[in-house]
Amino acid sequence: MTAKVLDVVGIGNAIVDILSHADEAFLAAQGMSKGTMTLIDAERASALYRAMGPAVESSGGSAGNTIAGLASLGGKGGFIGKVNNDQFGGVFRHDIRAAGVTFETPSSEDGPPTARCLIFVTADAQRTMQTYLGACLELGPDDIDPAVISHAKVTYLEGYLWDPPQAKKAFLKAAQIARKAGRKVALTLSDPFCVDRHRAEFQDLVSKHVDILFANEAEICSLWETESFDEALQATRGKCEIAALTRSAKGSLIVTTDELHVIDAAPVKHVVDTTGAGDLYAAGFLFGYTGGKNLFDCGRIGAMAAGEIISHFGARPQTPLTELLLAELR
Amino acid sequence: MTAKVLDVVGIGNAIVDILSHADEAFLAAQGMSKGTMTLIDAERASALYRAMGPAVESSGGSAGNTIAGLASLGGKGGFIGKVNNDQFGGVFRHDIRAAGVTFETPSSEDGPPTARCLIFVTADAQRTMQTYLGACLELGPDDIDPAVISHAKVTYLEGYLWDPPQAKKAFLKAAQIARKAGRKVALTLSDPFCVDRHRAEFQDLVSKHVDILFANEAEICSLWETESFDEALQATRGKCEIAALTRSAKGSLIVTTDELHVIDAAPVKHVVDTTGAGDLYAAGFLFGYTGGKNLFDCGRIGAMAAGEIISHFGARPQTPLTELLLAELR
Repeated sequence: MTAKVLDVVGIGNAIVDILSHADEAFLAAQGMSKGTMTLIDAERASALYRAMGPAVESSGGSAGNTIAGLASLGGKGGFIGKVNNDQFGGVFRHDIRAAGVTFETPSSEDGPPTARCLIFVTADAQRTMQTYLGACLELGPDDIDPAVISHAKVTYLEGYLWDPPQAKKAFLKAAQIARKAGRKVALTLSDPFCVDRHRAEFQDLVSKHVDILFANEAEICSLWETESFDEALQATRGKCEIAALTRSAKGSLIVTTDELHVIDAAPVKHVVDTTGAGDLYAAGFLFGYTGGKNLFDCGRIGAMAAGEIISHFGARPQTPLTELLLAELR
Repeated sequence: MTAKVLDVVGIGNAIVDILSHADEAFLAAQGMSKGTMTLIDAERASALYRAMGPAVESSGGSAGNTIAGLASLGGKGGFIGKVNNDQFGGVFRHDIRAAGVTFETPSSEDGPPTARCLIFVTADAQRTMQTYLGACLELGPDDIDPAVISHAKVTYLEGYLWDPPQAKKAFLKAAQIARKAGRKVALTLSDPFCVDRHRAEFQDLVSKHVDILFANEAEICSLWETESFDEALQATRGKCEIAALTRSAKGSLIVTTDELHVIDAAPVKHVVDTTGAGDLYAAGFLFGYTGGKNLFDCGRIGAMAAGEIISHFGARPQTPLTELLLAELR
């Protein structure tokens, strides 16, 4: 990766999504917890795929979706993540590059196949995700190029990266380089169960290493072990420079030590599939932030990008977001 | 494949679709002819994929789409086609089986990878297809199980099968078995350029071996080398038992020696992507036909299934067609 100046470099699990419709009975029969992400092994992934209905494939991964969304808005994005040199790896590499993102992490040649996420979308548009990490387990500190990180305005990390042990080291290395270079570090908490698995470390991270935090209601409540969103909000305030807290249809809040902004969700005629909503909110927010917008406008762009992604199946934009942006900011 | 009684067994190229939006300028720059299917080699497929925008993958193939649609309507379908033992082959096999279709053609272990079709969807919802046949070239007469064919009410063949030389032999073997068993043989002409490549053989087939013919306006005009749809209609009449001729928004006509039925297109609010329209029309028609419906109702079910498929991206149903069917036939 050439060390050109990027708006945001994202580090995340490089995943191909396999999306299908499912009903509540199927989720129950398979023991799945609706709306969350569960890690599964290769054997379970095969069994579950056999039970799954007809599906479509689309590049995914939380940070991958965010950076693809940023590029769709016109931002300069880079991505670091590990795929295998297989057909799904080819699909992931093609899609993120075709979106205009710089992606030069070498593929693994041996070892497990490219990661996949089996996504079950229910009639209420909720998505339930079962992830086989595969080649993502091969991402390590050597994949972090200090020149790339130190030239990016923001380094964006997904909490999911805390699951594969080597990736966590890559994550910490990148965060340290970014802070040392005077750049910003952003983190998304990813999933309430992910927060559960790594709560103490995430609390430490948020307090000491993160400038911009993204979390939804369930995640921020899990972080501070409270059932009250307001309590979680108070606990977050002052811990990091900016926290963007999303609440689905209730909109989002942006909190700093001095400021509090309330942003409505974008109107969406028919919510089809919420996969990628948080990822695209972060994309819009970071596009605004690295473009020097005020925090309220950052949130508005985030809400607009999230609104586009939930109006169709899949977590990558189907409409160039620049077009929506022009309409939104007119 | 166990020799259970199937409504329809389809034989076709087993293909994974790679769908992306594109603009007219891109088609022109790549020398593509809008709305048609062009065969490409591996090298061209790689180059074109590199130039293609972010995409989604979905199982496809003309006859594969038809049989998946038939199953979605509640019909008993079987499919014969060749994939490689690679990840895309796994996707194809999963999706068609998950749709409820019997599919037991063994994968090829060596040789070229599973076929893919790069599909460029323009703002007018037209699709332009570039197909790399890959493993489809390995389909041969040995893949045709006489017991399966002779137990299926209809054997459905796609004209595209005339392109790979061994598949043509499989095609003829299946047609002969079906006729000998007193079953019906159906054929879709697939594409006007495909008709161009094989006109004399297709004319012979239609006159001598085919009971039910599916063609759109461009295809039937190409078959009889006329620019007049009415002339093509007259030329077709009497050549085969039933011809179902589709005309996009103008609806369809069903012609036998004695009957002529005119069927309106189903109303569609917003046509997103016409990929699979003809395939799903055939699915609906054959579902009605094998269920003993009159020809007018066969056409109505075909129009309804086509209407569903053009209202979204991709050529496999997103809604169980049984639900639409219940609404349509109420």
